[in-house]
Amino acid sequence: MEVYLDNAATTPMRKEVFEEMEKYFFQDYGNASSLHLFGQKAFEEKENAREKIAKLLGVKSKEIYFTSGGTESDNLALKGIIQKSNKKKVIVSAIEHPAVLRTAEFLAKQGKKLSVIPVNSEGIIDLNKLKKEIDSDTALVSVMHANNEIGVIQPVKEIAELCMEKNVLFHSDTVQTIGKIKINLKETGIDLASISAHKFNGPKGIGAIYIKEGTPIEPLIHGGGQENKLRSGTENIPGIIGLSKALELSLKNIEEEQKRQEELRNELIKFVLEIPKTRINGTYEKGKRLSNNVNASFYGIEGEALIAFLNEEGVFASTGSACSSKSLKASHVLLALGLSHIWAHGSLRLTFGRQTTKKEINYVKEKLPGIVEKLRKMSSIK
Amino acid sequence: MEVYLDNAATTPMRKEVFEEMEKYFFQDYGNASSLHLFGQKAFEEKENAREKIAKLLGVKSKEIYFTSGGTESDNLALKGIIQKSNKKKVIVSAIEHPAVLRTAEFLAKQGKKLSVIPVNSEGIIDLNKLKKEIDSDTALVSVMHANNEIGVIQPVKEIAELCMEKNVLFHSDTVQTIGKIKINLKETGIDLASISAHKFNGPKGIGAIYIKEGTPIEPLIHGGGQENKLRSGTENIPGIIGLSKALELSLKNIEEEQKRQEELRNELIKFVLEIPKTRINGTYEKGKRLSNNVNASFYGIEGEALIAFLNEEGVFASTGSACSSKSLKASHVLLALGLSHIWAHGSLRLTFGRQTTKKEINYVKEKLPGIVEKLRKMSSIK
Repeated sequence: MEVYLDNAATTPMRKEVFEEMEKYFFQDYGNASSLHLFGQKAFEEKENAREKIAKLLGVKSKEIYFTSGGTESDNLALKGIIQKSNKKKVIVSAIEHPAVLRTAEFLAKQGKKLSVIPVNSEGIIDLNKLKKEIDSDTALVSVMHANNEIGVIQPVKEIAELCMEKNVLFHSDTVQTIGKIKINLKETGIDLASISAHKFNGPKGIGAIYIKEGTPIEPLIHGGGQENKLRSGTENIPGIIGLSKALELSLKNIEEEQKRQEELRNELIKFVLEIPKTRINGTYEKGKRLSNNVNASFYGIEGEALIAFLNEEGVFASTGSACSSKSLKASHVLLALGLSHIWAHGSLRLTFGRQTTKKEINYVKEKLPGIVEKLRKMSSIK
Repeated sequence: MEVYLDNAATTPMRKEVFEEMEKYFFQDYGNASSLHLFGQKAFEEKENAREKIAKLLGVKSKEIYFTSGGTESDNLALKGIIQKSNKKKVIVSAIEHPAVLRTAEFLAKQGKKLSVIPVNSEGIIDLNKLKKEIDSDTALVSVMHANNEIGVIQPVKEIAELCMEKNVLFHSDTVQTIGKIKINLKETGIDLASISAHKFNGPKGIGAIYIKEGTPIEPLIHGGGQENKLRSGTENIPGIIGLSKALELSLKNIEEEQKRQEELRNELIKFVLEIPKTRINGTYEKGKRLSNNVNASFYGIEGEALIAFLNEEGVFASTGSACSSKSLKASHVLLALGLSHIWAHGSLRLTFGRQTTKKEINYVKEKLPGIVEKLRKMSSIK
């Protein structure tokens, strides 16, 4: 049996998405900036896709800009805002994705000010500390919506209110939530939000960013002036079509699907906690965690070994973020939660998708305890 | 009849490219950074593609980095080099693509120094002026290999020698040449070269950059550290596979294909020049122009009107660059060649691809003179 439980890293594309994209490779392959029929068709399809996405997210068409993915969107948000601002400070949470953290650190190296806000042991940002850190020199606050490793959902509405009061812009990396939770971006009060298609069964290499109308921002990629002069480069029409279709499909019956995954998740969490010396990382209080995320730590075990043994059994999982999986460093997210290095090194992330079945979860339940036992026998840490 | 003659803007993807990409959407859809089997497969296929591309271009695997396209590659080259340099000056030619020109202008706004080198009436860069402009404060020279509007090929080997003598890095936007001309990048002496897949029948949204080993450069997009820490973001595996296949196919029998297109081009140039008050923009001396490019000006006619009438007849062409086609400004390239505004506004670009046939060119020859005559009758400029 093959069980893919690394859906927070990436997802398989849906057939229906592929079918929508296909003709834009050969048939309607025009450059959207060309004046002739081929160009016009491409332009119209692109604008239709933008409109559909905007509608699904409760915002205006002109507030959606296409990029190459979530990482580019995060970079554009942080660098683009600070470039146009006469303020110097950026505030981020300690558990941001590297796309935000490394970008913020780069800005700090360039002479900007950076403030990193801690989270509590459940993975929720400290709002009092955030409030204190926002000063008259603060240009931007960037706090992710849901964390990619532990799935914990941040109180973005409260953060947005705080930022609005203090007249500071608020960016949120919504890569793990858009397509998984029904979101009306307008209502959240977020000013900029990053989107990645391959996280919700769309194609890789395409993403978007929501930028509230009137937000002053400098492009990250200059050139021909596409995307209303904010993001240059020939538009990836098949990708754009794929993104809009994938978003549409992912939001269909989303509440039901969330409920289904939540039941699987709760069942698996309960099962895991019955294994001795085990913990779940991040809160799993109702509504505060993505329904597709289980992140557990097994004391005395190396997460990488766990992944390797699960792999042998056909279960494909992760220790945390795929982005830093090859560094073998303990997760910065788990350390921020206050885990010791031993606990942090023993982490396992299982993330579900639309295609994940109860049968698959049962298979994991069958295999996991034996693997944990075997690895614990081999471990020097008791 | 439908005749697509805007291949410098974009090209249809080849079926064989699509067939290679297909399984990476659904089957081998892993994140190349994941440690499990799906991730490993993706990683290996990505590295195989990189190796193939490097071999085709005569460079090392580790000198090829994947990006979202030519515009991103150009931005990375200019911004990334200047960021890491203690020198302040960038030199570009007057006929660069907007991806280079706008980026260079952005750097100038940031306090860097910018020098723009003119071209002669044939579209070739003034090497003496370039030589004079390179001083001890120069970090980078960026001169495109072939121009996207007029197809004129620059003497990159001589420019590379000049730069090497003066210890200055040399970037070349090779978006219009790679896949159209056989190039050994190592032998050219270029330090950085931009590549775009959709210009040679590959997918949109994927590109690459060649960066000579040991070149100090700062990432444009920070994050998870993919692409040897130079370009973060989940790798677009289907795109990467598509890029490598498209490059392989485009270089097969390339000399024959070039010869075939050159004959069509020369025939069409001869035909166009027989229409009164007409000129060809840029040299068409053998070896100094892409074999797929005809750029003509028709005195007293608006290029946009010409495009519209050709469109009615099923011929899809451009006035110049697709990137600036909607601005209705005269081409900066044609103005740099010394054309008056009237001549520059009357430009038509016809660019061939592998799929272009003699029959199609004959169809254009049949339709073009009548349209020119009709538009001249309507024009106030005689």
